[in-house]
Amino acid sequence: MIKITFPDNSVREYAEGTTAMQIAESISSRLAQEVLAASVNGETWDLSRPIMQDSTVNLLKWDDEEGKHAFWHSSAHLMAEALQELYPGIKFGIGPAIENGFYYDVDPGEATIKEGDFAAIEAKMLELVAKKEEIKRQDISKADAMKMFGDRGEEYKTELISELEDGKITTYTQGSFTDLCRGPHLPNTSYLKAVKILSVAGAYWRGDEKRKQLVRLYGITFPKKKMLDEYLALLEEAKKRDHRKIGKELELFTFSTAVGAGLPLWLPRGTQLRLKLEDFLKRIQKKYGYQQVMTPHIGAKQLYVTSGHYAKYGKDSFQPIHTPQEGEEFLLKPMNCPHHCEIFKSFPRSYKDLPLRFAEFGTVYRYEQSGELHGLTRVRGFTQDDAHLFCRPDQLKDEFLKVMDIIFIIFKALDFENFEAQISLRDKVNRDKYIGSEDNWEKAETAIIEACQEKGLKAKIEYGEAAFYGPKLDFMVKDAIGRRWQLGTIQVDYNLPERFELEYTGEDNKKHRPVMIHRAPFGSMERFVAVLIEHTGGKFPLWLTPDQVCIMPISEKFNEYAWNIARQLEEQDIRVLVDDRNEKIGRKIRDNELKRIPYMLIVGEKEAENNEVSVRKQGEGDKGSMKIATFAALLNDEVEDMMNRWQKSNK
Amino acid sequence: MIKITFPDNSVREYAEGTTAMQIAESISSRLAQEVLAASVNGETWDLSRPIMQDSTVNLLKWDDEEGKHAFWHSSAHLMAEALQELYPGIKFGIGPAIENGFYYDVDPGEATIKEGDFAAIEAKMLELVAKKEEIKRQDISKADAMKMFGDRGEEYKTELISELEDGKITTYTQGSFTDLCRGPHLPNTSYLKAVKILSVAGAYWRGDEKRKQLVRLYGITFPKKKMLDEYLALLEEAKKRDHRKIGKELELFTFSTAVGAGLPLWLPRGTQLRLKLEDFLKRIQKKYGYQQVMTPHIGAKQLYVTSGHYAKYGKDSFQPIHTPQEGEEFLLKPMNCPHHCEIFKSFPRSYKDLPLRFAEFGTVYRYEQSGELHGLTRVRGFTQDDAHLFCRPDQLKDEFLKVMDIIFIIFKALDFENFEAQISLRDKVNRDKYIGSEDNWEKAETAIIEACQEKGLKAKIEYGEAAFYGPKLDFMVKDAIGRRWQLGTIQVDYNLPERFELEYTGEDNKKHRPVMIHRAPFGSMERFVAVLIEHTGGKFPLWLTPDQVCIMPISEKFNEYAWNIARQLEEQDIRVLVDDRNEKIGRKIRDNELKRIPYMLIVGEKEAENNEVSVRKQGEGDKGSMKIATFAALLNDEVEDMMNRWQKSNK
Repeated sequence: MIKITFPDNSVREYAEGTTAMQIAESISSRLAQEVLAASVNGETWDLSRPIMQDSTVNLLKWDDEEGKHAFWHSSAHLMAEALQELYPGIKFGIGPAIENGFYYDVDPGEATIKEGDFAAIEAKMLELVAKKEEIKRQDISKADAMKMFGDRGEEYKTELISELEDGKITTYTQGSFTDLCRGPHLPNTSYLKAVKILSVAGAYWRGDEKRKQLVRLYGITFPKKKMLDEYLALLEEAKKRDHRKIGKELELFTFSTAVGAGLPLWLPRGTQLRLKLEDFLKRIQKKYGYQQVMTPHIGAKQLYVTSGHYAKYGKDSFQPIHTPQEGEEFLLKPMNCPHHCEIFKSFPRSYKDLPLRFAEFGTVYRYEQSGELHGLTRVRGFTQDDAHLFCRPDQLKDEFLKVMDIIFIIFKALDFENFEAQISLRDKVNRDKYIGSEDNWEKAETAIIEACQEKGLKAKIEYGEAAFYGPKLDFMVKDAIGRRWQLGTIQVDYNLPERFELEYTGEDNKKHRPVMIHRAPFGSMERFVAVLIEHTGGKFPLWLTPDQVCIMPISEKFNEYAWNIARQLEEQDIRVLVDDRNEKIGRKIRDNELKRIPYMLIVGEKEAENNEVSVRKQGEGDKGSMKIATFAALLNDEVEDMMNRWQKSNK
Repeated sequence: MIKITFPDNSVREYAEGTTAMQIAESISSRLAQEVLAASVNGETWDLSRPIMQDSTVNLLKWDDEEGKHAFWHSSAHLMAEALQELYPGIKFGIGPAIENGFYYDVDPGEATIKEGDFAAIEAKMLELVAKKEEIKRQDISKADAMKMFGDRGEEYKTELISELEDGKITTYTQGSFTDLCRGPHLPNTSYLKAVKILSVAGAYWRGDEKRKQLVRLYGITFPKKKMLDEYLALLEEAKKRDHRKIGKELELFTFSTAVGAGLPLWLPRGTQLRLKLEDFLKRIQKKYGYQQVMTPHIGAKQLYVTSGHYAKYGKDSFQPIHTPQEGEEFLLKPMNCPHHCEIFKSFPRSYKDLPLRFAEFGTVYRYEQSGELHGLTRVRGFTQDDAHLFCRPDQLKDEFLKVMDIIFIIFKALDFENFEAQISLRDKVNRDKYIGSEDNWEKAETAIIEACQEKGLKAKIEYGEAAFYGPKLDFMVKDAIGRRWQLGTIQVDYNLPERFELEYTGEDNKKHRPVMIHRAPFGSMERFVAVLIEHTGGKFPLWLTPDQVCIMPISEKFNEYAWNIARQLEEQDIRVLVDDRNEKIGRKIRDNELKRIPYMLIVGEKEAENNEVSVRKQGEGDKGSMKIATFAALLNDEVEDMMNRWQKSNK
């Protein structure tokens, strides 16, 4: 008999060689239906693999990342099997599960695979699902593997095998299809009830543009048809909310090949929006005792050697900038922290000076391949709403609480009410890889856990997920259509204070090392604006939106009156457009609805006579006529109200 | 007889071979005393050089740059003559006039020249002045010059001579000293009534660090003793106001060798000050219809090849940034204009859209040798308060008027009431070197002249000083101690719209090229803050100063009351410090006076009881006790008043 320990720490005994599937069946038939894979002593296993010794076992279902991963990994094999039947002689590259679904890189030889072929592939996949083919794992020697795949002319597979260690090679087989694979996989193909091929693209073998371009087929599968329908509806909705599309429609930002890929140019409206966000955060940060600083966008290469960033980013990022004389080398800064450390060092610091909170909207640059760039979410230059808090170890918890306040204010102000938190701590066992004293780690981990408790925040604790230089707290928000985005990390750092030899004089008159906290509630202005666009569909809150009001004269006769009102509203800091085109009012309303402007003011004879405006509110329709001053007060109260509400609720 | 035309266009006849000195004598003996050199047909000549043909002549005095230049150039020779007598065997490098005085690079062989030796050198110089030695010009052949200086072992001079063209070499001689020199010079040494050696430094021969380091002696001379005294007092005052010194005292900015020379780190107080200035300008610019944009700090190298900036800055500035893949090349941007041109191009533009005014606090980078860096005035990265106005040719004058408004608001707000303006137009004759049509130039030049007239601004017109791509208007302000700084250039540009092929659709439905205006009222934030520090001696206006109020409890008993007041004032957006050190109140007042804080609030028993503060105003002393709300209102009114005054007076 062997002892199996479950996540709730309960222990049961089973016969040696029992499989995870058998364990699931022993608990409930419902669980046996839902389980997809098992975590056995921290490793993900097939359900059918015999467990030979005492183990901790976690049965993984759809909601577990690893369960879903096995599901989609098996789906990649299913698609490959279908392709093998439809395209005889097709050769296979790699076919992993990804965040949403899976892909397979294939070489169909003379054949082509186009969108028009997707239906046939899906049909063939469902045919194989119906066959309920068993998926079998097999150990294989390197020589046998080379022979097996070599005989089939699978040149990509043999290249991969040649790099593997003998004795650690496995294959998975279902029906007529065998793949080189580490697994894990589902027990059989019948789980994959709903399938969809999503797209086709080119992909260089091993990402190397000098090698052959293969065909990459993306797909997704679900255990239920309804889930697939929901996913496709989500995709459709996401397409409508694509920040690249809305960013263009609302004239927020643009890219120019002349300037360079991945380097956004913020147009006036986008700049207005971004600066509003920055000002909002600055205002909050000021209340929380942050001090703004400004540092250059470059730094001596040696600075990043000291910080360790050169080792991390140096080779793969923008290369050093040389000077025509004096042989100096500079780097576009990949991070702001070293500069802030130098500011800390610019004066002797005492324990009374701490905490010091240096904030900067600091632009950093990291090279990404052009194929990986994506709108504002994946760029080559971005501005972090960065801050570095230098504090004493005993101030950590308080600082954490304050940073959490700021993050909650932002989530509330921007309607990200749906979020999860994760605390990343050290590995429970292997603690040699972490820098910083045991005492400090203990203090910091406790501080984070207690801070979450005090805030009533249910945070998932993950052991072993901490960075080597400190524990952290992460937030994941769900947007309006249910997608998850990571926003706001609070990271403790014992490493940089060490590397930069930062010191303060303690109450004991001795030198001490401060602790550093990195935090960026927005993450980067670019990515955050992208998320905000996709979350709101471009309907930004009134206080934030670039144009708050559009005035529409019903005919050119009232253009002057419209401009007159515009000036009055601008005097009161209201952001106004006038649509004085020679167009019908219906057309103007339709056009301006597309611009997601919160208020439309329609002005004609009656309004001009009474010095009034007819007010239409986005999503609420006609609000009647009112004096201009009344409208201005209404709008400004609405904005003021928003600003005050969040700040009050958190102070 | 020859005809001499004077600057006022009057013409007089003189005998052929008349000298400028004789002309001056013919006008008045006073003029003959004051004249230092003459501009003959645009070239500066010695007063004693015979004029052989009809010429335009301008007699140059101390107030003319060229007059002063001759004065200081002769002074460099005078110092060299003194050195030759004091240090036999000394060898000479070069000895030019500079902006304030002159220097000579010398090789004293085994001897050293230290500050302690200055008095002896000055005495020797005055001795030679008293001798009234004539300064004589002589043409010399290259061979003779090589021999003359070679015989004397003047290796530096012979190196220079070897590079000169035969037939164009002249020497100047006074007493026992002969120098290789183009001139011009004063008639004799007696003009140099007051002399001062200012400093000594090392300087590589020909600026090349691989060659010998010579001794560079700086000096200055004046025609009157009083002028020297005034200058030395100014130097003393300038030293006190040195922005590097005050920047340190007030904790405004710092430099770190780890980050790199010439790359300022803005400390919290400096950032606060800078952001206030930026916000102030943003507010004004908004009123004038500017739109903020934001662009990356790098751009593809090709972008600057297109703009022509690569040809200008490429070789001597920061070198291109390479990417690890894809072989792309980027440059740290030396200018913001190309990015703004790309924003202009991002949409089709119509005549109705113009003018478009894109503003950005855009940081640019230009490499400077480390020896040339100087605080915030000469840096390697700086942020321009840049804007580019794209307009139709018929809108130029109106745009000029508006930019002038903005510049005047700033001058008024920051107390630069003393300024001059200069209009730089095309050369009257040689017009081939300018790009842009005759018609457009004519329009632009007229627009600038008329704009100045409408504003009642007396601007000096300089022909031939326009850039090849357009005319401009420059402002020079005088600071509190009389130094002149160039601040605020308005530059018309026909070149970039051409190079970037910018277009708008005119009322005629045809494509037209817009005109561009570059303008930066502050110039750069770095340099402007430096000038402002030196102008105000660190006593910034109340609205701008980083700390507006310092609260000083008379003993620790009242610290809590002090912090309580601080919070109340902060609620009203007042920037407050609390000096709660355990020090005597007298010491606190002295320390905080050094910090140039406009208001000090002293709080003790009486104040705490009555909920009041005792107010001391910088420069005005005790203002009595008042309620906290009264003080807050007083301060905020003072700020509000300042802001409104400038804006009203210009709208």
